[in-house]
Amino acid sequence: MPRPSMREHLIEAAHDRFHEHGFNGIGIKDITDTAGTPKGSFYNHFDSKEAMAVEVMRRYAESRGMDMLADTSVPPVERIRGHFAYLMADLERYDYARGCMFGNFGAELSTQSPTVRDEVGSRLGRWASALASALDEARAAGALASGVDTAVLARFLVSAWEGAAMQAKVVRGSAPLDDFFTVFDSLTA
Amino acid sequence: MPRPSMREHLIEAAHDRFHEHGFNGIGIKDITDTAGTPKGSFYNHFDSKEAMAVEVMRRYAESRGMDMLADTSVPPVERIRGHFAYLMADLERYDYARGCMFGNFGAELSTQSPTVRDEVGSRLGRWASALASALDEARAAGALASGVDTAVLARFLVSAWEGAAMQAKVVRGSAPLDDFFTVFDSLTA
Repeated sequence: MPRPSMREHLIEAAHDRFHEHGFNGIGIKDITDTAGTPKGSFYNHFDSKEAMAVEVMRRYAESRGMDMLADTSVPPVERIRGHFAYLMADLERYDYARGCMFGNFGAELSTQSPTVRDEVGSRLGRWASALASALDEARAAGALASGVDTAVLARFLVSAWEGAAMQAKVVRGSAPLDDFFTVFDSLTA
Repeated sequence: MPRPSMREHLIEAAHDRFHEHGFNGIGIKDITDTAGTPKGSFYNHFDSKEAMAVEVMRRYAESRGMDMLADTSVPPVERIRGHFAYLMADLERYDYARGCMFGNFGAELSTQSPTVRDEVGSRLGRWASALASALDEARAAGALASGVDTAVLARFLVSAWEGAAMQAKVVRGSAPLDDFFTVFDSLTA
């Protein structure tokens, strides 16, 4: 197996450091130190810290269980619930301290970086679309109690999840996510 | 009328700078420059940048229209809706670029600062309690379509609002907040 490249090492290091401490809380030297590479190596691989944040979000997106939402072997409501349970398990792994990287970057960087803001918008938009498709299937199967338009409901669930992940960071516990599931269950049949 | 004190000038300056650029995006010198005071004056009034952030949140909390939630001259659902509409108008004033300061600080600083995290938790907790009381009145008046426990529903609405305010920053528009109101209306009778 080939060894991961220095670029990959840097992305992995930045993924962890950004997720825990935010963008402005971490310097390029923190990232290169964590990766065990010289500080000067950073600009051989990335144009800017922002460009690296975009790469880190791509990596993060791959671990969001998006494929679960399209898995038609599972009934749609169960599938959506399973997807959120998967995300919750990921938050639990770090004692709820890290939150969702998309939401963290959206909150911290939307005024500072149009590049990061666009990437967060695009990631959250794709997520809401995948959710809306699964909600359409749920409605067709008579499994939605809510009568709200599925595109609206999907975007709302993304907001509610992002807010719950933020509050879970604040209280360092699962309660805000438990609340999310309670309301989600009331919206489905 | 007495002139605002230098301490007040500093809090006002920090309120604006923190709200727009986050905590780590702004240095103490930015704040003292905005306030038109010497940099050295900061530590005459505040023990730390974190202590100042707590003061700024107190100031911010006073402008959140919390009193609207307890105004029994207005029917409870109308009152809750009016409260969120008031918060939305505040976000609109800055082209949705600033988001909610509680959520911004919660997302950015929960790992960095236990002091700020506790203050955010306390502020969001008090908000959810005030919402829950108004939701209790709504339920007693037969004005809730949702059967979810009011304390759970209140905390969930806080999450949903915080996520929507974050997404409004990201898309620089009202759509995520409009979605919030659509779902809110479906939960009330």
